[in-house]
Amino acid sequence: FHPRTKVTTESIFSRMSRLALQHGAINLGQGFPSNPPPGFLLEAARRALGRVDQYTPPPGLPALREALAEDLGVTPEQVIVTAGATEALSSLADSLYGEGDEVVMLEPYFDAYLPQTLMVGAKPVLVPMRLQPTDSGSPGGGWELDLEALEAAITPRSKVLLLNSPYNPTGSVFSREELEAIVALARRHDLWVISDEVYDELYFGAPPTPLRTLAPERVFTVGSAGKRLEATGWRIGWIVTPPGLAPEVAGMRQWSSFCSAAPLQAAVAEALPLARAEGFYAELRESYGRRKDLLAQGLRGMGLEVFEPQGTYFLTVRMPEIGAEVLVQEARVAIIPGSAFYASSPPPQGLYRFAFCKTADDIEQALERLERFL
Amino acid sequence: FHPRTKVTTESIFSRMSRLALQHGAINLGQGFPSNPPPGFLLEAARRALGRVDQYTPPPGLPALREALAEDLGVTPEQVIVTAGATEALSSLADSLYGEGDEVVMLEPYFDAYLPQTLMVGAKPVLVPMRLQPTDSGSPGGGWELDLEALEAAITPRSKVLLLNSPYNPTGSVFSREELEAIVALARRHDLWVISDEVYDELYFGAPPTPLRTLAPERVFTVGSAGKRLEATGWRIGWIVTPPGLAPEVAGMRQWSSFCSAAPLQAAVAEALPLARAEGFYAELRESYGRRKDLLAQGLRGMGLEVFEPQGTYFLTVRMPEIGAEVLVQEARVAIIPGSAFYASSPPPQGLYRFAFCKTADDIEQALERLERFL
Ligand SMILES: CSCCC(=O)C(=O)O
Ligand SMILES: CSCCC(=O)C(=O)O
Repeated sequence: FHPRTKVTTESIFSRMSRLALQHGAINLGQGFPSNPPPGFLLEAARRALGRVDQYTPPPGLPALREALAEDLGVTPEQVIVTAGATEALSSLADSLYGEGDEVVMLEPYFDAYLPQTLMVGAKPVLVPMRLQPTDSGSPGGGWELDLEALEAAITPRSKVLLLNSPYNPTGSVFSREELEAIVALARRHDLWVISDEVYDELYFGAPPTPLRTLAPERVFTVGSAGKRLEATGWRIGWIVTPPGLAPEVAGMRQWSSFCSAAPLQAAVAEALPLARAEGFYAELRESYGRRKDLLAQGLRGMGLEVFEPQGTYFLTVRMPEIGAEVLVQEARVAIIPGSAFYASSPPPQGLYRFAFCKTADDIEQALERLERFL
Repeated sequence: FHPRTKVTTESIFSRMSRLALQHGAINLGQGFPSNPPPGFLLEAARRALGRVDQYTPPPGLPALREALAEDLGVTPEQVIVTAGATEALSSLADSLYGEGDEVVMLEPYFDAYLPQTLMVGAKPVLVPMRLQPTDSGSPGGGWELDLEALEAAITPRSKVLLLNSPYNPTGSVFSREELEAIVALARRHDLWVISDEVYDELYFGAPPTPLRTLAPERVFTVGSAGKRLEATGWRIGWIVTPPGLAPEVAGMRQWSSFCSAAPLQAAVAEALPLARAEGFYAELRESYGRRKDLLAQGLRGMGLEVFEPQGTYFLTVRMPEIGAEVLVQEARVAIIPGSAFYASSPPPQGLYRFAFCKTADDIEQALERLERFL
């Protein structure tokens, strides 16, 4: 095998889902919803089957590029449909960096960022979020963006700034002021910015600012129909490129998987305007908000410190340090150890990420099991 | 952009499909069927929607790995489901080679092979098929495998032999003797072999020998539900690895697109045993065989030299050299210039690949248009 296969250890999410199944644990680990996708999406897919089954152009079914452009306020030419956000990120890695380049990202980081950077030969540079007590009034729960550290991490080899807001795993949503400061810094050092906004419709306070609106010339946005429409297994993601830069990225994407699943692209194209018109995202936020509160209250009731998320469907708590394997086997609750999102050692101790995109029943039962165990 | 984006020119298939649409041409270029997928596949997909919509494990839905293992005579652990054969090939490139490695392949080659090799920094080494007159009795139509040239191309840097049988674009199917000679050569030089067998069920003579049966320890097989079940846009492909080698490859695949479309995986899992039991592939061969004969007879009727395919749904003819752009605009027939499959210059002149996975009507009309034009 090629040495780049050193990044092939199983992702923490697959691993915990596998262990959850094995031990009959409630799975509050991997972030996939218990709900099925909405009926209007499923119906659209059923209608597309038998009609839209062959290759689409690699940048996407024209109808989907148009629907996304309309939804996101960009042109269809800027949109590239990908096989989920994972491929969006990997096609951007293929397009933008390699040997000798540095990619600056925040820590904790979403787990794919590191291997995807290493796979193309580039160097990930991690800038730790400052971890404050959750009662410090920090809007990010307990995590704060350290702009000085971010700027200090930039070198002449820095090529890209990779950001995630709403932020998995922290649940932070960067404020407009923070984003403006980040953009100023990217301009000062002439960096590309990859803005992973897969949770763009999943927030509990003010709507997040799409980073591309502040720096259209240098921001590549990553999005996901799976996250928006509760169909994480459909693998329909997208990239919005700065104007004029799509052909190169689409050119790379054609060699990684050629195109995304055609009937599912057609279904998402139909569903996007419906989701908007029928207030689906607002309902989703309400429903997730209730489950977030249920989980947070339960955990606080056990005396645990909860990092209140402003977005995403994840929430972090501080607990006594217990191995995640022990928890899945003995408490029969699968959650993700915070250390999985850190490469610096030692990682902060006793942090655990819970996914609340699960049924209220599952959340309640997980709380009971955890309380009994602790 | 990173220099590796020099491989991002639009694929010849997308390009010709785009031009066909633009000029109202009949599209015998890109290889996708006119038929919709079979009803049993569509029905299975409709049933899976709303049931199997979230992430599957990166190596695939267990039911699909099992169905493939059963169909192919391997173990489920050897099977990795991918986002089409394109991703199968790109994950193998990620896993097996990089800077300093050479990948030996035959010329003409399927268009993705070259950019996928270059993208990971490896060097493609092209071994030309010998091009004989079609009446020479060569079973490969007019192309012959040159085993001596193949062995001569191997150097200490050679890492992988990349083969395609049934062979797109030539339509050849390598005989068991040829495959045995190739395997002996791979063993002598300790090479991995990637055997692209996406047309495994599409042959017009004796069934092709799966190369892995001759060298299970070193052959990675690539396959495609899109080709077998006439659903090229579904993006369900697979890799069969040598025993014990799947985890590394699956590990790379998890960072390229995480998993394939979940409901479509479930549908293919149901459809594979049905396709086998109900003789679907035999019907497919018959139906393609008729269209092959229709096209070949029509072309021969115009006095053109036809390379009779033993497999795939492609057929090559020799014609006066006319630009493919001229043909699509003026004859309003889109076909693929043979030169698109050659990197050596000059490429052989006047070769054109026709796809016959189209309706008999389209084939007849294309023949008329072409005859009028010529
Ligand atoms: C692609 S698996 C990751 C799912 C997810 O977004 C998470 O659990 O963080
Ligand atoms: C992935 S587009 C290529 C389709 C095809 O197999 C061909 O036309 O050769």
